[in-house]
This record gives sequence, structure tokens and C-alpha cells, in this order.
Amino acid sequence: MTDVPRITGVLSPVVTPFGADLAPDPERFVRQCRWLLSQNVGLAIFGTNSEANSLSVEEKIELLDRLVAAGLDPARMMPGTGCCALTDSVRLTAHAMKVGCGGVLMLPPFYYKGVSDDGLFRSFAEVIERVGDARLRVYVYHIPPVAQVPITLGLVERLLAAYPAQVAGMKDSGGDWSNTKAFLDAFAKAGFDVFAGSETFLLQNMRHGGAGCISATANVHPGPIARLYDTWRAEGADAQQARLDVIRGVFQKFPMIPALKAAIAHHGHDAGWASVRPPLVALTSAQSTALITELDAQRFTMPGLAIR
Amino acid sequence: MTDVPRITGVLSPVVTPFGADLAPDPERFVRQCRWLLSQNVGLAIFGTNSEANSLSVEEKIELLDRLVAAGLDPARMMPGTGCCALTDSVRLTAHAMKVGCGGVLMLPPFYYKGVSDDGLFRSFAEVIERVGDARLRVYVYHIPPVAQVPITLGLVERLLAAYPAQVAGMKDSGGDWSNTKAFLDAFAKAGFDVFAGSETFLLQNMRHGGAGCISATANVHPGPIARLYDTWRAEGADAQQARLDVIRGVFQKFPMIPALKAAIAHHGHDAGWASVRPPLVALTSAQSTALITELDAQRFTMPGLAIR
Repeated sequence: MTDVPRITGVLSPVVTPFGADLAPDPERFVRQCRWLLSQNVGLAIFGTNSEANSLSVEEKIELLDRLVAAGLDPARMMPGTGCCALTDSVRLTAHAMKVGCGGVLMLPPFYYKGVSDDGLFRSFAEVIERVGDARLRVYVYHIPPVAQVPITLGLVERLLAAYPAQVAGMKDSGGDWSNTKAFLDAFAKAGFDVFAGSETFLLQNMRHGGAGCISATANVHPGPIARLYDTWRAEGADAQQARLDVIRGVFQKFPMIPALKAAIAHHGHDAGWASVRPPLVALTSAQSTALITELDAQRFTMPGLAIR
Repeated sequence: MTDVPRITGVLSPVVTPFGADLAPDPERFVRQCRWLLSQNVGLAIFGTNSEANSLSVEEKIELLDRLVAAGLDPARMMPGTGCCALTDSVRLTAHAMKVGCGGVLMLPPFYYKGVSDDGLFRSFAEVIERVGDARLRVYVYHIPPVAQVPITLGLVERLLAAYPAQVAGMKDSGGDWSNTKAFLDAFAKAGFDVFAGSETFLLQNMRHGGAGCISATANVHPGPIARLYDTWRAEGADAQQARLDVIRGVFQKFPMIPALKAAIAHHGHDAGWASVRPPLVALTSAQSTALITELDAQRFTMPGLAIR
């Protein structure tokens, strides 16, 4: 183990803004990331909600470089660097280390289905060995509804045994609390940091030794989610959790990524934010109106977003 | 429509050889592709069986360039160019056109699941428009067991209406003949070329107006599969099909990609061929022995492979 500070708390899988030509927009991206940091939320850029797998490796490297060039703290960044191709994962992970990222969130290779833990172990091991950086902190990413390739307890056990300093934790986006709890029970005491995949499980996760959450809705509701993390031991934590659940429930009535972008477009007075890359499609105008109406009914706001 | 000759017949999703460092081996790749062409089998390089999604875009471009530099005919090539990221698909497809490939086989973006036909239409349309080459021939790739994102009849109908010259056909690797037949019935008469995803359906496909097959086992059994394509109207075609099914049945008892490579390693006297990239794993020595024993029992040979 080394003395590199570990990432904890609430992180946002930052949504990626696109221009009219569908190219990533680094200026909007920097502004959004700066706002999230101001709300005490870290930057899990290039996650599922970032449409990261709809971006080339070059596009991701350019966006990361722009954040660092803009003076944002790389220690607060946990970019997604797990790709289908070993060489892509190595290239992105090495670049994240080069610029000083606090960690990387790694999907397993997700094209082939039904692969063995032997094959997945070797995938992660090859990346760790080839990057060969003592500062590397890998968070493995369990998201079976999308990747369809799960991270098992047995795989984490093998990875921890082989790379105790590099294998730092996981994000569990399976939506099944009993699975998250199984990882907490097995590995949290050994310093393996479990992030819940949404704020729905933030309070439970903290009460069982978790490290925080990495949540889609931290893109739009960062301050209140970060506040629950900061005060989870205090009286009223359950009421905070209930309020977070209401807001998340509104977003979950719509396709999540387009809905996050629609809310940012509306509350940031910046219609360009609504754009998504294919194969996703933006909300229809009727869907956007319904989303905003429901959020307004909940007195939902995004303080500080419009005046950046 | 233009007068570019259309690809028909039997193609192999060519397995990709790796060195001990897991880097693609262009020399072995060129030799293998030359042997396949000598067996009258075309080159659907960068398919599922090629571990194409375990390769970076740069690695694929380098391998394609090496084939062309070696004098292999690009008109016989149908590289897989469909990636998760729009920009990667555009880059690879444009490069395939630049070197004169006869067509490209395009997976839908496969990370996000449950995406709409609107989003998939826009994905293919953006690639076709951005590549902007009248010679482009796109074969859409339906392989729901792996990609988990299907190609529907409705999607093909829309694509054909919008891009009648570019949307040339499909590969159906769903393993469900009734689906293949539905596409044949709907579109074959309009010149949409349906390739079965394995030789199991080659004879049926030809009898219903199909264009051939693109099959994993064409990597190892190319001559006999191509012979059935050439003589499917002749007496004895059913007996040929039955013999092909027996050989394929042996390979299907093992993980397909490692088994193909093990057979090439054995019959080509070149142990290096057995290597696969993670997340796949090579056959165990016991599995390899069992495979070769069963193939020997069927008097299986790979004529001309060892003397390249």
C-alpha cells in the first residue's frame, strides 16, 4: 500500500456534451465538471452515463487533457478506461496515470458474453501489468444490465490477491443491494472501496462500510447527494435519502441519459446540451416538457448551473 | 446502383494470430488469408471470430494495410467496421473504402442495450453519410447472442429506403433459420444479399435466394464449404451439407474461437496460432487433444495449410 489519498464520496459519471456535428464539446464539458466539483462531487468521467463507449479513445484523451489543462484537480477524477480491446484499455489507463488521475473505473471487456473469470482476470491483470504504475488505483465496474459481463466475488478475490495495491474497489451498478452487501462483507475491511451505482443505496452502503456512490443523477442533483454522504451519521439522514429517492424517481421515468441532458439544457439555459450520440436518441419535446414539469412540481433546482 | 461487383459466396471471419506479447502478427495473418483465398473463400476479416473487438482501430488498420500491401485482392474483403463509437466506425469504414474493400460488415453499436430502431438507423446513417463514398457496400450484422442488439426487418426497410445503393445485405448469425428466411422473403428480390451466419444454413439459404455464408468454420474447412456453394444446385448437395454439419459439430463441442486456432496450430504445425487475447482463453491441452482426436476420426484435413 502507498500513501496516495483514496477517492471517496459522491462522484458523477459526467454526461458528455456534443456539438451540432456530434463532436464532443470540451468547453461545455469543462464548465460542467467545474460546477460538479463546486458541489463537492468528484468526476467519474467516461462512464456509462457519459456515453463513453460512443467516444473513440482519442476523443476521451482529448477531453481528459482539456479538464487538466483547465486546472481541474486530477486527484478528483476516476475516468472510465475499460474497453473491449486490451490495447485501448492500456492506452487510456496509462494516459489517466500520466495526468495524475486518482483512480480509473474499469469495465470488463464486454463484447464476448459468457467469458470465464480466468479470461477476465487475465484482462485486468494485463492492463495493470502493462501500465506498470505503482500509483494506479483500479475500481472494477459491475454493470450486468448493460455490459452483460459480471464481476464476481471470486474474480475480485483473485485480483486482490495478485494486485493488493492496485485493486482499490468497485462500482456496483447491478441494482441489487444484496450483491453490493456481499462485496462489502467480503472485502470492505481489507480496504476495498465499494461505491454504490446510484444514490438509492448511498445510505445503506455507508452504514455497511462503503465508500460512497457514483450515480447518474449526481449529474443533476449533486449538492444534496454529496450532503447525504457528508452527514450520513446525523439525524435526518433517512429523510435526506427519501428526498433523493423522489428526485431520482422522476428521472427514472424517462430514458436516463437524455433526461439528464434535458435537465441540464433547461436549468442551464443551454439547449445544445440536449444532444446525444447515436444509438441514443434525445427526449422528444413532449418528454422534455413532462420531465421539467414533474421536476418543477418537486421544487427541483440546480443551484449555480446557469451562472457559470 | 453502380456496377461494382457484389461479394457473394463463402467468406471466413478470419481468426487473428497473436504473438507471445499478444500483438497481432501480420505475417501469419497474410499467410492465412492467402490460403483462404486459395480455397475460394473470401475474407470477412475483423468479425466476431477474428476477436476484432479485442483489437484497437489502429491494429485493425495496420492488419488491413498489410493484406493489401501483400497483394491480396481487396475486392474479396469485407472487413468488420462497426464499433461502439460512431467516430471509430467512420474511421474504419472510410479506411476500408480507401483501400478498395468490396464491402464492410457492420455491427450495430453494442454497448447500450434496448436501444431504439431510430437510434440504430441514425447510427448506420451517420456512418454512410460521413464516409460519403458511392462505392460503399454495407452489410449489417445481426448477432443477438453476442451483440445483444438485434437488426430488425423494420430497420433494414428504413435503411434500404434511405440508402438503396449502400445497404447491400446482411449477415444473420442469430442461429434462427426462420429469421434468415424472413429477411430473404422481404428483401432478397430487391437485391439485398443475405449471408447465413454459418454453413449450417448454407444450402437452405441458397435455395431461398441467399448470397452465401460467412462462417467461423470457413477458417478451417474452407474448400468443402466453398464447394457446396459452387454446386448447391447439383445432385449430392444434401450429402455435402451433411458432411459439413458433422465437421462443424465437432468444433461446436469446444469454445469456437480457441478451437479454430487450435486446429490451425495443429494442422499448420505452428503452435503460436493457439494464442487468444483476453477475455478469451486458449483450449487446455486436454481440450486440444480431444478436438484433434475427434477431427482425425472424421478424417478431417486442411489441405495446403502446412506447406505455405
